[in-house]
Amino acid sequence: MYEIRGLNEECGVFGIWGHPEASELTYIALHSLQHRGQEGAGMVVSNGSYLFGARGMGLLTDALTKDQLRSLKTFPYAIGHVRYATTGGSELSNVQPFLFKSHHGDLGLAHNGNLVNAMNIRRALEDEGAIFQTSSDSEVFAHLLRRSKAGGKKARIKSALRQLKGAFAFVIMHEDSLTVAVDDHGVRPLMLGKIDGAYCVASETCAFAAINAEYIRDIEPGELITMTDDGIDFDRYTETDKPNMCSMEYIYFARADSEFRGTSTYTIRKALGKALYKEMDVEADIVIGVPDSSLAAAKGFSDASGIPQEQGLLKNRYVGRTFISPGQEARERAVRMKLSPVKDIVDGKRVIVIDDSIVRGTTSKFIVKALRKAGAKEIHMGVSSPPIKNPCYYGIDVSTHAEIIASKKSPEEICDRIGADSLTYLSVERMHEVYRTYGSRGECDACFTGKYPIEIIDQVLPQEKDLKTKGV
Amino acid sequence: MYEIRGLNEECGVFGIWGHPEASELTYIALHSLQHRGQEGAGMVVSNGSYLFGARGMGLLTDALTKDQLRSLKTFPYAIGHVRYATTGGSELSNVQPFLFKSHHGDLGLAHNGNLVNAMNIRRALEDEGAIFQTSSDSEVFAHLLRRSKAGGKKARIKSALRQLKGAFAFVIMHEDSLTVAVDDHGVRPLMLGKIDGAYCVASETCAFAAINAEYIRDIEPGELITMTDDGIDFDRYTETDKPNMCSMEYIYFARADSEFRGTSTYTIRKALGKALYKEMDVEADIVIGVPDSSLAAAKGFSDASGIPQEQGLLKNRYVGRTFISPGQEARERAVRMKLSPVKDIVDGKRVIVIDDSIVRGTTSKFIVKALRKAGAKEIHMGVSSPPIKNPCYYGIDVSTHAEIIASKKSPEEICDRIGADSLTYLSVERMHEVYRTYGSRGECDACFTGKYPIEIIDQVLPQEKDLKTKGV
Amino acid sequence: MYEIRGLNEECGVFGIWGHPEASELTYIALHSLQHRGQEGAGMVVSNGSYLFGARGMGLLTDALTKDQLRSLKTFPYAIGHVRYATTGGSELSNVQPFLFKSHHGDLGLAHNGNLVNAMNIRRALEDEGAIFQTSSDSEVFAHLLRRSKAGGKKARIKSALRQLKGAFAFVIMHEDSLTVAVDDHGVRPLMLGKIDGAYCVASETCAFAAINAEYIRDIEPGELITMTDDGIDFDRYTETDKPNMCSMEYIYFARADSEFRGTSTYTIRKALGKALYKEMDVEADIVIGVPDSSLAAAKGFSDASGIPQEQGLLKNRYVGRTFISPGQEARERAVRMKLSPVKDIVDGKRVIVIDDSIVRGTTSKFIVKALRKAGAKEIHMGVSSPPIKNPCYYGIDVSTHAEIIASKKSPEEICDRIGADSLTYLSVERMHEVYRTYGSRGECDACFTGKYPIEIIDQVLPQEKDLKTKGV
Amino acid sequence: MYEIRGLNEECGVFGIWGHPEASELTYIALHSLQHRGQEGAGMVVSNGSYLFGARGMGLLTDALTKDQLRSLKTFPYAIGHVRYATTGGSELSNVQPFLFKSHHGDLGLAHNGNLVNAMNIRRALEDEGAIFQTSSDSEVFAHLLRRSKAGGKKARIKSALRQLKGAFAFVIMHEDSLTVAVDDHGVRPLMLGKIDGAYCVASETCAFAAINAEYIRDIEPGELITMTDDGIDFDRYTETDKPNMCSMEYIYFARADSEFRGTSTYTIRKALGKALYKEMDVEADIVIGVPDSSLAAAKGFSDASGIPQEQGLLKNRYVGRTFISPGQEARERAVRMKLSPVKDIVDGKRVIVIDDSIVRGTTSKFIVKALRKAGAKEIHMGVSSPPIKNPCYYGIDVSTHAEIIASKKSPEEICDRIGADSLTYLSVERMHEVYRTYGSRGECDACFTGKYPIEIIDQVLPQEKDLKTKGV
Repeated sequence: MYEIRGLNEECGVFGIWGHPEASELTYIALHSLQHRGQEGAGMVVSNGSYLFGARGMGLLTDALTKDQLRSLKTFPYAIGHVRYATTGGSELSNVQPFLFKSHHGDLGLAHNGNLVNAMNIRRALEDEGAIFQTSSDSEVFAHLLRRSKAGGKKARIKSALRQLKGAFAFVIMHEDSLTVAVDDHGVRPLMLGKIDGAYCVASETCAFAAINAEYIRDIEPGELITMTDDGIDFDRYTETDKPNMCSMEYIYFARADSEFRGTSTYTIRKALGKALYKEMDVEADIVIGVPDSSLAAAKGFSDASGIPQEQGLLKNRYVGRTFISPGQEARERAVRMKLSPVKDIVDGKRVIVIDDSIVRGTTSKFIVKALRKAGAKEIHMGVSSPPIKNPCYYGIDVSTHAEIIASKKSPEEICDRIGADSLTYLSVERMHEVYRTYGSRGECDACFTGKYPIEIIDQVLPQEKDLKTKGV
Repeated sequence: MYEIRGLNEECGVFGIWGHPEASELTYIALHSLQHRGQEGAGMVVSNGSYLFGARGMGLLTDALTKDQLRSLKTFPYAIGHVRYATTGGSELSNVQPFLFKSHHGDLGLAHNGNLVNAMNIRRALEDEGAIFQTSSDSEVFAHLLRRSKAGGKKARIKSALRQLKGAFAFVIMHEDSLTVAVDDHGVRPLMLGKIDGAYCVASETCAFAAINAEYIRDIEPGELITMTDDGIDFDRYTETDKPNMCSMEYIYFARADSEFRGTSTYTIRKALGKALYKEMDVEADIVIGVPDSSLAAAKGFSDASGIPQEQGLLKNRYVGRTFISPGQEARERAVRMKLSPVKDIVDGKRVIVIDDSIVRGTTSKFIVKALRKAGAKEIHMGVSSPPIKNPCYYGIDVSTHAEIIASKKSPEEICDRIGADSLTYLSVERMHEVYRTYGSRGECDACFTGKYPIEIIDQVLPQEKDLKTKGV
Repeated sequence: MYEIRGLNEECGVFGIWGHPEASELTYIALHSLQHRGQEGAGMVVSNGSYLFGARGMGLLTDALTKDQLRSLKTFPYAIGHVRYATTGGSELSNVQPFLFKSHHGDLGLAHNGNLVNAMNIRRALEDEGAIFQTSSDSEVFAHLLRRSKAGGKKARIKSALRQLKGAFAFVIMHEDSLTVAVDDHGVRPLMLGKIDGAYCVASETCAFAAINAEYIRDIEPGELITMTDDGIDFDRYTETDKPNMCSMEYIYFARADSEFRGTSTYTIRKALGKALYKEMDVEADIVIGVPDSSLAAAKGFSDASGIPQEQGLLKNRYVGRTFISPGQEARERAVRMKLSPVKDIVDGKRVIVIDDSIVRGTTSKFIVKALRKAGAKEIHMGVSSPPIKNPCYYGIDVSTHAEIIASKKSPEEICDRIGADSLTYLSVERMHEVYRTYGSRGECDACFTGKYPIEIIDQVLPQEKDLKTKGV
Repeated sequence: MYEIRGLNEECGVFGIWGHPEASELTYIALHSLQHRGQEGAGMVVSNGSYLFGARGMGLLTDALTKDQLRSLKTFPYAIGHVRYATTGGSELSNVQPFLFKSHHGDLGLAHNGNLVNAMNIRRALEDEGAIFQTSSDSEVFAHLLRRSKAGGKKARIKSALRQLKGAFAFVIMHEDSLTVAVDDHGVRPLMLGKIDGAYCVASETCAFAAINAEYIRDIEPGELITMTDDGIDFDRYTETDKPNMCSMEYIYFARADSEFRGTSTYTIRKALGKALYKEMDVEADIVIGVPDSSLAAAKGFSDASGIPQEQGLLKNRYVGRTFISPGQEARERAVRMKLSPVKDIVDGKRVIVIDDSIVRGTTSKFIVKALRKAGAKEIHMGVSSPPIKNPCYYGIDVSTHAEIIASKKSPEEICDRIGADSLTYLSVERMHEVYRTYGSRGECDACFTGKYPIEIIDQVLPQEKDLKTKGV
């Protein structure tokens, strides 16, 4: 239930070096990453001498026209981006990849994540006369890169990266090279793949599946990889390494078929569902997952508990923007148009509903109400993640504190509010336990615990907040 | 896999009489019927004296603008239609509901189904000087109604209906009444509901769930129901009654939460999956349903067989029109963008894949190939319906004979073509058995057996075929 | 000052038979007739067996897309229409040419004018079961034609035409012939031309100039001309002949380079200006014509009086839809954005302003005010036509009585209202005198005199008025 | 004949300080300046603390939506721009006003003209790490301003302006001030006006007429004017002063009602026509001006010669983008759709045609051909300016040398090419004489003489040319 929940990933990135169908593959890959951002999309390609780009607002299929795609077709090097607007308003000028032109050479830039010292750096650069034209945090990287005095392009990139704090997976294109870098906490995923001898990178492995590429491995925190026509160079921009992969990528964002270290998110989510069962001692007749993202956790819960899983809730495939009157019933109506119970499945049953997370509680409340109306005798909510209590500064658009129900209410109060017979969250400990089972070396759990692994440096002043939301 | 399969329902209808929010409820109801037609949508409303309408091309959210909805807002009587173009080209003039204006009074008309003597009637009417402006088969009804000499509106409607052959669920609006009629074979579903004291009708009960209306009962073959401000009148336009509900409605078209005689399609599909197990004696490690429409059948198969069901195939929620180059790999690429296997679920497994039907075999072939690549050891296809061998003349756009794989090939040949280790179809007998269990009194199985319950009268001549596809 | 005046012509028509570039020539011709209608445009072509059409809303360049034009390209027979909405609301379904398809053969129809017994005929046809789908008066002709029992196509056309009262220039396309007819009063112009051996017809000769065709002659009241591949056939549908060409065509509607019986409208308008001088004994320093349509009359006035003509008022070429706030100054602001005085030309001068007509007086009032502000010492308005006092029923959208300033006010009162020093209208007698000089055999002057040459038969009832303005 | 000639002005600017309807007045003013640029338009407003902007592609009415205008409505400070793309490709990112945001304060920038050392400065700034995001020459000013170390805003603006070479009229908005500056040659016009106590500036005085503002005076070369809430400050950014107003502004670009030092362009053009007569000793029956821009010159010629002026050529008001096939006749067809002779005016006459300039000769050639076809006995072309032989580097998009007919051919050869009986150009000397009569203190005549008053510094290298035409 993406639209309603209030949790929004900001980006997906892709890049490929040296393939005759580079731009078409990028287009397909971006399509498979569309769940990571629906507000804009773009592509920058290179012919080995100059860069060219195209970008637009909305879904990929609206953002890039057939004519634009055709014009980018013959270029063997390409990067792409799908965007959800967190930092920076939702204007075309903030849609990535950025393309900076200069007599020193062109620069293409696609970024997934969020920098926590971008404002600070921007202020310092502006004091030196720099002019910023987007309100995106990503633009500071380009300025740092251009101003670096280090010798050699790679040295300049390293120098620029070292000044950044926060979460980032960068895909950087020069006319003759593709460079990718992941912050030393590895908050956002970036994967390495190969197709027909050409290397590629993507936010998730589902992009490799879409283009029929081979998934090689996850790119590590702090890594810096450079592709040129001479081959691929593996390096690091920093020696430190303190892994903190975003927990919500596992729980909710990544597509179920996307893999982390060879394990599908589907399998990880099943394990989260199994782990939840250990903490949720409830008798019931059926288990129902909230479609689509919680079906895996429900399957895990069902396997562990032996309680059969049924499709007791269905999701309408046609969502889009509907024009319904605001007013008393409007919000509930909106949810009802998206989710519907299967009456003869739930009627007379004791039901366990598994959801992967609760942000505002609106959807949960509707689900409970709808299932009761359909005849459910008991409704027990199980959440396959801990209570979300804190905002994210590393690239996820969680609604403000005021809207996060668990920031102010206890599970008991939330249970009461949504009208369920019981409500059980997964504990933070068991969640980490699951990740470790699948080889994760450390995860960020700040949204649950408030312990932010990377210090938040920017103090957002009123003027800059405005600057973030307005623009041309 | 709607887009690829080549099976397309043509319409969904809705009508409501005497509710202060009639047009908004119609809009929401049509949204929930969107799966029945995506090429156009419209609404006609009445203020008790005149009719007014709005319609457009594409999905409901594109077809009707916010301004149009606002202009229809205060009217207490409304009918609506979502259309998939079978008969009649895809021009705005063919989008329904039709609105005919006359000094005798206005007429609004929405039709789900397909008439099999429309061309014949049209030719006769044209010989008498009638002018047709759409190429839709539904327009003949309006002409018959206007030319009827019978006394009284209801008598004229009955007289017109009796001249029609084929499948139809009509929703007919006059300024002071809403009349609905179902052909005497009852090929297409039409349901009766009630909300806040106002009666409503819809192609499927999911529309009632969407607007929070009560589902009263299925409208019977041959029924003629009239709603006025004085109440509701139940009648029949014909005494005969030979029920032949379209099997594909149960198998594939209806939304899983839609009910027939109080039973959800989900439950019927589970039963089809269970029945399939009786005919498919295969050992395997996991059962996978092709999402979304075959998940219920897979669940039934899993329950019956005891083989665990897994989400081994995932569907991309973002489809839309993508611009990929035609050519050798294009078709396969298109499927790959929509369906993807979860590798670690299928790797090393003997897999049973349940699909609800096979039309061209393209998708099945891709699924087998993709699962093998993901490591599946054995792949057995189970189809929860009999082989589709014949075109439908009653309102489903099955591709031509040439494209229906089972019209020329045996199951063994199809199995060979798609590369599966085995292929099992449900038998026609067991299929009917399932329907009977849930109270169905007779089904059309012409697409499987070639036994058409209603004679196909129109002999389509070349000129008229042209007439069908061209127009302003 | 078309947009502001409130006088709107409703249509321009064109047709060509047997030219390899028929559709392209039609497109260019319609472009040159754009001043006759800007609300919609369309084309119907024939390949000799069937008709095909395309039409759309707005200016020609918006109404017909490049793809549509390409699809119509190879057809050697074409008719076209530009429309201003008088009868019939402004919906696509009312945009012409109409295309009626039938197993008897197709019919394309383009109409300029307005029928005054269409409602009457429509009511009668509806009583016989006919269904009308547009709210256009032109559709009745198609019904009459189809219902005619006369032997032979030409006989049926004559029979249908004879039942019509009002103003019409019809261009009628069957797959194998192009027929054109003008009502026996000849209210609307229709011209005959020839290009590369192919005959063509157009509302004005400027269309011939645009496509480089030869202008042959004006089609006479009551004429019926049929073109087939066998040649051209000149006939009449009626013996009577009582010419009443619309005076406003000469005064205002026709493009200045369009000719009537070999004389340009420019020349006729100059003569009207000369005639006005005979009735307007005013001393002044300069004569100014209101651009663009009154420049010719001003030239005639200047020539006759010896007072030099200057471009003291300029017209902004960019008009289009601007978003300015409604309110006190809005209307005046709108005019100011379109017309502006040249200060150093009028400063200190006694000015005669020549306008070709006054409908509401808004523009005149602004002109006087603006010229005074620019320093004009005296401002004398001369109108090169008599006072418009009555609505037109023959195809011109004059605003209602309430809005026509001369319907209630004397010239003196109008002069007072617009603030001029004097106001002189051309007399009806002198106006006719001018037309006779140039060979006109009779003109309609109903908007000036109230003497309607054709009886207005339709009694528009409330329901039908609604029918006229609403629709799908 | 703007579209065909190949002479395109690049910009119009407007600014207003301290008026409650600032944004609406800016919108209306830009509408009146639309002839100076049709490829994009925008507006930046201030609330006294921050700047906000909106801009778009195409004509003003397309570029700025109703919603955008509404959002800018309450702001009392505004600047605006209409753009024709010369430098910088035609992308949204190049549409002005630019809006630069910074924690030092926001900057809005609108520019009319062209800098001739922008590339040089850009290269130098890029060497220091600056990043440019548009390909517009105007952006360098913002960088120079931000990097200036001078004390005080005005000092920084002066310092930045002094580094620029070329033609410019800048309108610069800070949150608390509006600054305007004109280069010391005064190549492009900028006018000062006042409305309801608020000062405003515009490229032409027609903008003042449109909003009903008072025209105060022309801004002088080298002037720097600052408006704040404390009042207006008149200063200069440089002491030098070498006036070189663009001759083509007088001849062709400015709207006829726009004034220079109190004299309308209409009057200046009449004088050019009179001067031409002194050099053109031809007997003829009528004088015809090519509409619209040459009607004034024709009037002057007619007055001087005593030969009567007639509207022998008419211009179609509906131009827009038409889809006609390329090919042999296409170009001529395009002109024929825009210009048409009035046959009975020219038939049998000896005609003098006055055009204000000839660039490629295509239109002239068509005019001669069309007039001959219409019966003209003799055709003498008079051009009210000298032969255009050289490109413009100061902001006019004259087509390349190759396309300028007079760059390679003598008047005799041109006369021969266009098929006229004689061709006379105005001499450079007489042209200057006319300007001096009306108070001009010096004009640029480089396009006629090749004597460029400002040295062209930028040496455009291949890469940068690419940079100019490509971008995101």
